Amino acid sequence: MQPNWIKQRAYLTPNRIAVSFHDEQWTFQELYEKSVILAYKLNAYHLLKGKRVAVLAPSTPKLIEVLYACMQAQCEMVLLNGRLSKQELSYQVADAEVDAILVADSELEKLGANVKIISFSELHKIQPQPFEIASEWNDEFALTIMYTSGTTGFPKGVCQTVGNHSASAVSSALNLGLTEQDAWLCTVPIFHISGFSIIVRSLLYGMKIRLYEKFDAQACAQEIANGLVTKMSVVAVTLENILAEMEQANLTAHQNFTTMLAGGGPVPAAYLQRAQSLHLCVAQTYGMTETSSQTSTLASEDAFLKIGSAGKPLFFNQITIDAPNEEGIGEILVRGPHVTPRYIGKFKDKSTTNEGWLHTGDMGYLDEQGFLYVVDRRSDLIISGGENIYPAEIENVLLAHEAVKEAGVCGVEDAKWGQVPVAFVVLKAPVTEKQLMNFCEMNLASYKKPKKIHFVNNLPRNGSNKLLRRQLNELKQN
Amino acid sequence: MQPNWIKQRAYLTPNRIAVSFHDEQWTFQELYEKSVILAYKLNAYHLLKGKRVAVLAPSTPKLIEVLYACMQAQCEMVLLNGRLSKQELSYQVADAEVDAILVADSELEKLGANVKIISFSELHKIQPQPFEIASEWNDEFALTIMYTSGTTGFPKGVCQTVGNHSASAVSSALNLGLTEQDAWLCTVPIFHISGFSIIVRSLLYGMKIRLYEKFDAQACAQEIANGLVTKMSVVAVTLENILAEMEQANLTAHQNFTTMLAGGGPVPAAYLQRAQSLHLCVAQTYGMTETSSQTSTLASEDAFLKIGSAGKPLFFNQITIDAPNEEGIGEILVRGPHVTPRYIGKFKDKSTTNEGWLHTGDMGYLDEQGFLYVVDRRSDLIISGGENIYPAEIENVLLAHEAVKEAGVCGVEDAKWGQVPVAFVVLKAPVTEKQLMNFCEMNLASYKKPKKIHFVNNLPRNGSNKLLRRQLNELKQN
Repeated sequence: MQPNWIKQRAYLTPNRIAVSFHDEQWTFQELYEKSVILAYKLNAYHLLKGKRVAVLAPSTPKLIEVLYACMQAQCEMVLLNGRLSKQELSYQVADAEVDAILVADSELEKLGANVKIISFSELHKIQPQPFEIASEWNDEFALTIMYTSGTTGFPKGVCQTVGNHSASAVSSALNLGLTEQDAWLCTVPIFHISGFSIIVRSLLYGMKIRLYEKFDAQACAQEIANGLVTKMSVVAVTLENILAEMEQANLTAHQNFTTMLAGGGPVPAAYLQRAQSLHLCVAQTYGMTETSSQTSTLASEDAFLKIGSAGKPLFFNQITIDAPNEEGIGEILVRGPHVTPRYIGKFKDKSTTNEGWLHTGDMGYLDEQGFLYVVDRRSDLIISGGENIYPAEIENVLLAHEAVKEAGVCGVEDAKWGQVPVAFVVLKAPVTEKQLMNFCEMNLASYKKPKKIHFVNNLPRNGSNKLLRRQLNELKQN
Repeated sequence: MQPNWIKQRAYLTPNRIAVSFHDEQWTFQELYEKSVILAYKLNAYHLLKGKRVAVLAPSTPKLIEVLYACMQAQCEMVLLNGRLSKQELSYQVADAEVDAILVADSELEKLGANVKIISFSELHKIQPQPFEIASEWNDEFALTIMYTSGTTGFPKGVCQTVGNHSASAVSSALNLGLTEQDAWLCTVPIFHISGFSIIVRSLLYGMKIRLYEKFDAQACAQEIANGLVTKMSVVAVTLENILAEMEQANLTAHQNFTTMLAGGGPVPAAYLQRAQSLHLCVAQTYGMTETSSQTSTLASEDAFLKIGSAGKPLFFNQITIDAPNEEGIGEILVRGPHVTPRYIGKFKDKSTTNEGWLHTGDMGYLDEQGFLYVVDRRSDLIISGGENIYPAEIENVLLAHEAVKEAGVCGVEDAKWGQVPVAFVVLKAPVTEKQLMNFCEMNLASYKKPKKIHFVNNLPRNGSNKLLRRQLNELKQN
């Protein structure tokens, strides 16, 4: 059992700022009080302990209030991604068998009508029905359910329990440290684990969230330079956007800003070097929906010694490499109190772990000191003439070129070699395909050189800006 | 399951300093390696998983090595207090049914011969017998067993599990914060929970311990002023000694020094005010052997708003007051993952909790904001003419007098009132009993005024310098 986090935090540090958004801010006590009333309103809809509700809303304080309310009411929350198609949302809502969907008024049109839909404005209007809010939560309670993008086929609904989330937040603090001045800049979507885990940390640490509805590179650059925030979660592409803004505006990171937590795939070495010039400490992390955020993170003392590594496991976690090849590369297996114990819906009978180990489907290796290097997503692996090619390796080379802003690589069918790699790049300065090819030739084994480089305006990315390599090929028709 | 802390810490941050002592220091990797060899040596004595060993040694790195080795071997450790009499030690060793006693050569004479005794020098000499050291520890495993001083009658052997210790360390970090620069000055005995919990924090945080074999007020004052340590555990009397040293040497606390964690009973308000003048932030805490160190601690933001309070529970803990009287004072009950699940030996069938709540035997109240005030140990309560008198209240008044260095109060039998309070004081400047009586009269209700004030050279204290009020009366004969 754990104390009800929201109640406990409001009791312990009522007057600390929980959330700031534009020019407004709310203390933990204020959010607690709002969430009690909203929980009473959920009760008016009979949405109480044991019920499952989906939530669809942009990242605003109104969403956080609703999430707090669901937690107070002990409803399992299915966090929906607003960037999904109507069809994809319907699938998740049906698979999760939710009792209702709580939806921001702005998002109403994204939903079909097969389930009870309660808009935020409706919810706020209903008469509250008081009930006794639980003082304790069960460790096994599924606080959140998130659908993973999956590899192919159907997305899976992953449960993250109270115990998973608290273990994750606690392990993160042991690794990154914690001070009363900490404030986490949140511009990643709250419906993803990268965003929701910031809410959990806020409650467990008594830490302020500086919230943005959408990622805004210019505003982030200012926040980081001003010293009003101390930590931020990014993926490679948002990191690059911030770096570019800071370089252009001649800004450097304030000394209060301690950690840029970079997840969702490897960060190109070129970005890390640029970050260093801006006094920006980038901690690369390896995590996923099934591990309630970080599994491993590069400790700050190793940040520049092990560029490209996702570090070592957080204290209570373990990592091993399954069936490594001669280079030591194999599937990454993960174990720890942060690993999901179960799926729901279609996959509810599928075990999440094998003898306690989560099989991530990602490929990687541990160096001689035990630092994890994530080589690639297994599903993205390109096999060409019997040789394994990891797209990220080629992308890293392209990204090191001064004209390249973003790069994505995937395999295409080839009569001779089985598969060959092709590249898609977004430019920030003029360059020819020939020039980039030459650059690749200098930096890559010949079989890894892309057979073709397409110049495009955008790369396909998911709600948390992670590159979707499987969709790259569709760009060729444009 | 949790990773083997010692192995995990050596893997994660091998080169950080684990322990420094006089002019020497050891990294986590070095201590890990030493402890592996020592664990192999324990194996040569068949001291392995499931065995129970008592350990008796002064607080030196040699002791830490042996404790690490016992953990690696998964032996339950009974930590013996070197200040106890031979008879008291024999009782504990017999009650715990230990398989062996590991003892520093200097302490050999303190032990009887009824159990296998292995001196540290013997242990170091034996040929190591390698075995496979466990990579994971069970949460339920009794890492340590400590005997509590108890109230009356027989001391109880309290198990502190892996889960208890880790919950305690994690909750402490969430409250006090954590930085890479942290170093904990350890002058409290390691055989007490106040000391052993520093070892646990060191392993879980990757934090340096600055170790002293004995408390040395002058050295502590220097360390605090130098900024080489950031936190320290004290009790009221050692705090006062440090304050006096700092005042005399005209020292103030370095800004790196963030927390003086003061446990083992209430800290007189006069000390807190003196500490404030020296920029020393005192965090009063309430904890005990059964709660694996802190249950509640006053957050730094409240330190000077709630003087005399032991704060609010740490994040994962809960406190309630049982059967409060009209003033809200009742027995303090505690719940959380840090509470011992079981006793051993004579008390092994006694439950430690009632519906999950530990009955502490201590009296206290929660103010309107939920801050805990520990009024007194129930067993020390003086009942005089039907009125409750809490010794600490009288002691606090005496300690506020400029001539008083230490004070202790207990009840003595009285024909008329049942009990009356008497006081024992150690002076730091000349004063008469009459003058002190007048001072009490000004500050206390008349029934609380001590009937007699004895001037003594020392007060009876236990191994962690906690005042032993039950022994005060014996001072009268001297």
